[in-house]
Amino acid sequence: MSSRSPEEYLRVAQLLADAAAAESMKWFRTPLDVITKADESPVTLADRAAEIAMREILGAQRPADGIYGEEHGLERLDADSVWVLDPIDGTRSFITGSPLWGTLIGLLEGGRLTLGMIDMPVLKERWIGQAGGGATRNGEYVRASNVSEVGKARIVTTSPDIFGPADWQAFDRLSRACAMRRFGGDCYGYAQLAGGTIDLVVEAGLQPYDYLGPAGLIEAAGGVITDWSGQRLGLKSDGRVIAAATPELHRAALALLNQK
Amino acid sequence: MSSRSPEEYLRVAQLLADAAAAESMKWFRTPLDVITKADESPVTLADRAAEIAMREILGAQRPADGIYGEEHGLERLDADSVWVLDPIDGTRSFITGSPLWGTLIGLLEGGRLTLGMIDMPVLKERWIGQAGGGATRNGEYVRASNVSEVGKARIVTTSPDIFGPADWQAFDRLSRACAMRRFGGDCYGYAQLAGGTIDLVVEAGLQPYDYLGPAGLIEAAGGVITDWSGQRLGLKSDGRVIAAATPELHRAALALLNQK
Repeated sequence: MSSRSPEEYLRVAQLLADAAAAESMKWFRTPLDVITKADESPVTLADRAAEIAMREILGAQRPADGIYGEEHGLERLDADSVWVLDPIDGTRSFITGSPLWGTLIGLLEGGRLTLGMIDMPVLKERWIGQAGGGATRNGEYVRASNVSEVGKARIVTTSPDIFGPADWQAFDRLSRACAMRRFGGDCYGYAQLAGGTIDLVVEAGLQPYDYLGPAGLIEAAGGVITDWSGQRLGLKSDGRVIAAATPELHRAALALLNQK
Repeated sequence: MSSRSPEEYLRVAQLLADAAAAESMKWFRTPLDVITKADESPVTLADRAAEIAMREILGAQRPADGIYGEEHGLERLDADSVWVLDPIDGTRSFITGSPLWGTLIGLLEGGRLTLGMIDMPVLKERWIGQAGGGATRNGEYVRASNVSEVGKARIVTTSPDIFGPADWQAFDRLSRACAMRRFGGDCYGYAQLAGGTIDLVVEAGLQPYDYLGPAGLIEAAGGVITDWSGQRLGLKSDGRVIAAATPELHRAALALLNQK
């Protein structure tokens, strides 16, 4: 039977990220004539090829583990260890030639999130968090900031367009109370939070493969990440996510978000 | 007297970008203890140091040329050649650890824009346009896309927060008619347009040093860039900018933007 040590899981996660980066970079900024000849968008082709490469690695290295993937569905979700995979998060960034797309990898052991990775192939930045082991960017330790007040916080979200009207009203109220608000960034916002340069990320409409990789990183970096009712994230959350650098900031931001 | 050949101007522009990158990268992602010890924000310090380094180069290499800079003001604007400099465009990206900030350089010869550069130090991408000489990214030729219809266009702007209410209404109307709209990106949106992966950039509240470098790049890449009334950009424009991949797209987008 396969080892369940943190080192072994980390080794496999690195293989997965390497494979996803190799496949997706083949398609990034594909010349226009290649795009128009293909029946599908380059990002769809890249996403699918990258997830297949990742599944092949898991099939060879961790055949008993479960997989929760974006493109090719679910396998063995009752296994002790379940990998949650998004080969290319930020497909609109990918399509428009922006470097802010990444590969997201989360690992659930007995339902507990023990590893999270955001790999940014264009930026060549690999952000990894392991429960009890801290968070790193390219091997150097990083930490969330110590900002504890909304009025001092820098907040980011991907776009106003990810929110419904009521959720936008809540986000708008919170973000206008912050020191700075930014749009854009996709998954990189969570990496910035883990690195201490952003203090709040608030989004909606996410899938488990969008938030579990980032969640593992942020918790290992000392941050707090939950749904909008303050519950821990899992495979059945409603897709509304709030990440904060400190518990105090998380509490204050949640209160503003849910103000009636 | 100094040469006025395109090669000579390009050589000087490269020196300017090299110097700005060296200074600004010293301060990017400065550790927190350095930030709190300084009286000023790291981006202010970086911006100022980078512009001083650029002015020293111009003083030594092109002493008779004019300078229109963000931090240290205007010199000899009546000179035949005037350099328009923004050492760090995207200060909020810089502050929050995002790679999407850049150095912008524009050159006016007799009031005509003949060179434009967007240099992205973190991404190591240098985008250069020269009137009559085409546009390049790291030496490879790039071109704006051939998208001519709003309904097929990918549009980007930095943030809803750069618009006043009426301008936001105009941007919102135009961008909802596009195939895709994106937020974030700062000056990188103009580079994406020059590279053919974005088709429209619409912004407001800009200064000449924010738009003249990008404008020189975009025109050399085959795109069109004007103010919102369709007038060419200069040192006295009102700060509202629309850039489009093709003249047809520019015309159609302008009409939607100005619809009553």
